[in-house]
Amino acid sequence: MTQDFTPHGKHLIAGEWVAGAASFRSEPASGPAHEFAMGTPGLVDQACEAAAAAFPAYAATTRAERAAFLNAIADEIEARAAAITQIGTQETGLPEARLNGERGRTTGQLRLFAQHILKGDYLDRRHDKALPERTPPRPELRMIQRPIGPVAVFGASNFPLAFSTAGGDTAAALAAGCPVVVKGHSAHPGTGEIVAEAVLAAIQSCNMPGGVFSLIQGGKRDVGTSLVQHPQIRAVGFTGSLGGGRALFDLCAQRPEPIPFFGELGSVNPMFLLPEAAAARGAAIGAGWAGSLTMGAGQFCTNPGIAVVGAGPAGDAFVKAAAEALEQVAPQVMLTDGIARAYQDGKARFDGRNTVQPVLVTASEGRTAAPNLYETDAASYLQDHALGEEVFGPLGLVVRVSGADEMETLAKGFEGQLTATIHMDDGDIDLARRLLPVLEQKAGRVLANGFPTGVEVADSMVHGGPYPASTNFGATSVGTMSIRRFLRPVCFQNLPEALLPEDLRG
Amino acid sequence: MTQDFTPHGKHLIAGEWVAGAASFRSEPASGPAHEFAMGTPGLVDQACEAAAAAFPAYAATTRAERAAFLNAIADEIEARAAAITQIGTQETGLPEARLNGERGRTTGQLRLFAQHILKGDYLDRRHDKALPERTPPRPELRMIQRPIGPVAVFGASNFPLAFSTAGGDTAAALAAGCPVVVKGHSAHPGTGEIVAEAVLAAIQSCNMPGGVFSLIQGGKRDVGTSLVQHPQIRAVGFTGSLGGGRALFDLCAQRPEPIPFFGELGSVNPMFLLPEAAAARGAAIGAGWAGSLTMGAGQFCTNPGIAVVGAGPAGDAFVKAAAEALEQVAPQVMLTDGIARAYQDGKARFDGRNTVQPVLVTASEGRTAAPNLYETDAASYLQDHALGEEVFGPLGLVVRVSGADEMETLAKGFEGQLTATIHMDDGDIDLARRLLPVLEQKAGRVLANGFPTGVEVADSMVHGGPYPASTNFGATSVGTMSIRRFLRPVCFQNLPEALLPEDLRG
Repeated sequence: MTQDFTPHGKHLIAGEWVAGAASFRSEPASGPAHEFAMGTPGLVDQACEAAAAAFPAYAATTRAERAAFLNAIADEIEARAAAITQIGTQETGLPEARLNGERGRTTGQLRLFAQHILKGDYLDRRHDKALPERTPPRPELRMIQRPIGPVAVFGASNFPLAFSTAGGDTAAALAAGCPVVVKGHSAHPGTGEIVAEAVLAAIQSCNMPGGVFSLIQGGKRDVGTSLVQHPQIRAVGFTGSLGGGRALFDLCAQRPEPIPFFGELGSVNPMFLLPEAAAARGAAIGAGWAGSLTMGAGQFCTNPGIAVVGAGPAGDAFVKAAAEALEQVAPQVMLTDGIARAYQDGKARFDGRNTVQPVLVTASEGRTAAPNLYETDAASYLQDHALGEEVFGPLGLVVRVSGADEMETLAKGFEGQLTATIHMDDGDIDLARRLLPVLEQKAGRVLANGFPTGVEVADSMVHGGPYPASTNFGATSVGTMSIRRFLRPVCFQNLPEALLPEDLRG
Repeated sequence: MTQDFTPHGKHLIAGEWVAGAASFRSEPASGPAHEFAMGTPGLVDQACEAAAAAFPAYAATTRAERAAFLNAIADEIEARAAAITQIGTQETGLPEARLNGERGRTTGQLRLFAQHILKGDYLDRRHDKALPERTPPRPELRMIQRPIGPVAVFGASNFPLAFSTAGGDTAAALAAGCPVVVKGHSAHPGTGEIVAEAVLAAIQSCNMPGGVFSLIQGGKRDVGTSLVQHPQIRAVGFTGSLGGGRALFDLCAQRPEPIPFFGELGSVNPMFLLPEAAAARGAAIGAGWAGSLTMGAGQFCTNPGIAVVGAGPAGDAFVKAAAEALEQVAPQVMLTDGIARAYQDGKARFDGRNTVQPVLVTASEGRTAAPNLYETDAASYLQDHALGEEVFGPLGLVVRVSGADEMETLAKGFEGQLTATIHMDDGDIDLARRLLPVLEQKAGRVLANGFPTGVEVADSMVHGGPYPASTNFGATSVGTMSIRRFLRPVCFQNLPEALLPEDLRG
């Protein structure tokens, strides 16, 4: 390590580092623990009021100014690359290569949004010319998407960079023209601090109002609840668990003035192995599945936790190959002690059921997780809702089906998913045609002959899906289209040109 | 009248006319009352299950097929023009010219959506080509907007055609590829029936599945609540009161699987009279305001209920001209007895306050409403939340301000609105520049030198706005963009061409 980073442990509120009365101690996977100021509803209030005060000026910035700001944040993050990787690996237990890759994704997202707003398509400009001769006359109408207001962002445990402090939600909101108040995740407060330092440096070099960004370090439950209930907050971006996400969604809906809660709550991402593909390359798909299932200790929202496979020898070969590949995977350090415990609890759900057969069962110690593989049949799966609940970690469940009809029944029985995958060969086309209309209703992304982990940040990406996968009704939390969550359309009727927003003039 | 229409009083459920055990009697403003079957949760369930059964086939129709269907509905409505106007005027008390105009708007909306989907922009197609040489390789990604599923639509009391059975919400949902279940408004059940008859004729001539459209006639509260809570319903379109709308919004958010509730809940649509404009043409604006305020007995969501005007002679001239014009307006029949009573209750709120001065106070009899005009000052307005609540009917409140600062303070104090209007001359530009950033945050549509009634159905229209004006977060309920409420994005990764939705092929 050429750089050493020791966090000071303060919140960043509207351009100032703020200490707190109470503190908490980080629980890194390695390296020294540090003290961090604990968030409070009072600090949340300060940050939200500062965001609201900054909003008119920030909403009035040009796209070029905001693009420069996003690029400056990316540059400032890169300038702290080694220190970010150092504290990030310590806090999360993720390997250096992952932190480096995720940093690239994070700066790539910021730069992609900079390019995206410069292009200007996202403004969705429309113009209906006046028709003064018509009866009744039509007025001049111009429409444009405008920023919604201050946005709350929750750092995610499993993406300390790409879905946290200056991650996708923050990048999309800042690109749209919305100030951001981040609630940092207490699993990686030091990583949050150094990224906030990068954002602050960009605020200063770009002359942005300080209130455009705040980071409140984690604390008790009241930090998150006061944040989503704050009257100045206009939308929320969240990546996390179904339980926590639903609780915050409910608070947003129950506000005197409800606001949208864009929550990405995870899913089991079912994978369907069609007969011809299974016969031709079941074992290869099984080995590939094991790789996707254990990547990053299985701590991805798109982890393909369930494989639907026919009974018979081709399915057996798939299961055998998956088990053999999983057996080779060493235990991996999980993001937090709590997540490691939850993984063991999830595994225990399967061990306790006589409708489920163990294929590969491992013991894990402390904060590590080793892969586990189970098998059940379609009837048992459909009767037991708990088997379809996400286990966060490298655990796979194979559901064996008697044939095409049962596969379709199972597809119909799934709840909303982030992704659904089919593995198919040419001879599987008819069955694939039956499954596709079902799967497109169940998932935000439908894949063929691949694995859902590795979410591409692109124009066409949809990371979202019907509840409980997300509360992103009609939206995505990854890719350029995610900016739409933080925009609202405004129509201007017969307004003098000089009064129109700059992007509607000329 | 060349055509006579006597309603049979049945529900339309998935292609069949269904009688009910219980019935209710219509309360027309003129002409004979009729018996109508009363909706029940059991009938709602039948309609929703039929909609869900029809969804896969309807979602798979081509855009050309759906466009032909929408045009056929418009033709069938026109074929029943005289009968629709006859029963419509009887039930609502609205004049013939209004019913004829609203029918034109309704068929115009259907035809506009037919054109809109044929153009195909709404599909929002995106394509990220595969980059197999990249590390890691990028898969082929294609995105398209797909229909969300069965949609519930609530008929509106104040638009028996354009926001009811085959109104804007229904047209947008059918255009998107979503089956519709309408809860008819009990204020105009016969109008609903004959329009449903037109839709049924189009279903038959276009060979659409019967479940694509159902009309459940009004009933008790349990019809609406069971409809929005039905597990097959995926989104709701609603136009109505804040109280009723919020209750349904809450039910949608509290579902095990929450769904979006697109509610247009009304507003007071503030109008700001800037000093130069007031001095130059205060009286003319006052007279124009009176016309907008009393149009359709003031029963429009965009009725400009509040005028913000300076103290002094120019403001006095505005108020005087408005009062004189309002005095000339004869009492008009309201939509229902209940709405007429609510108008009197709303008026009583003003009569009971010593912070409010009467300018023109009228007595209304039975189901009629005559205009009323009150005046107050900014401080009183800001201290008294009830003064900012919508009064549905021809009632105006003038808020006098001491100058530009107080005008801006007042603008900031308004809740979310469908529209906000400024009247300005060239010399008002600086004050207008101060108000605009505030007003664009408060309203879905901002107008200059006009009146907000008369909502243009166009590409650029935004009918919606921050809560409590609507729960249309980022959406509109009028204009072509309203189709977005009933779509969700789906990403297809590496899917063989033959399996892609037709609109993504080629």
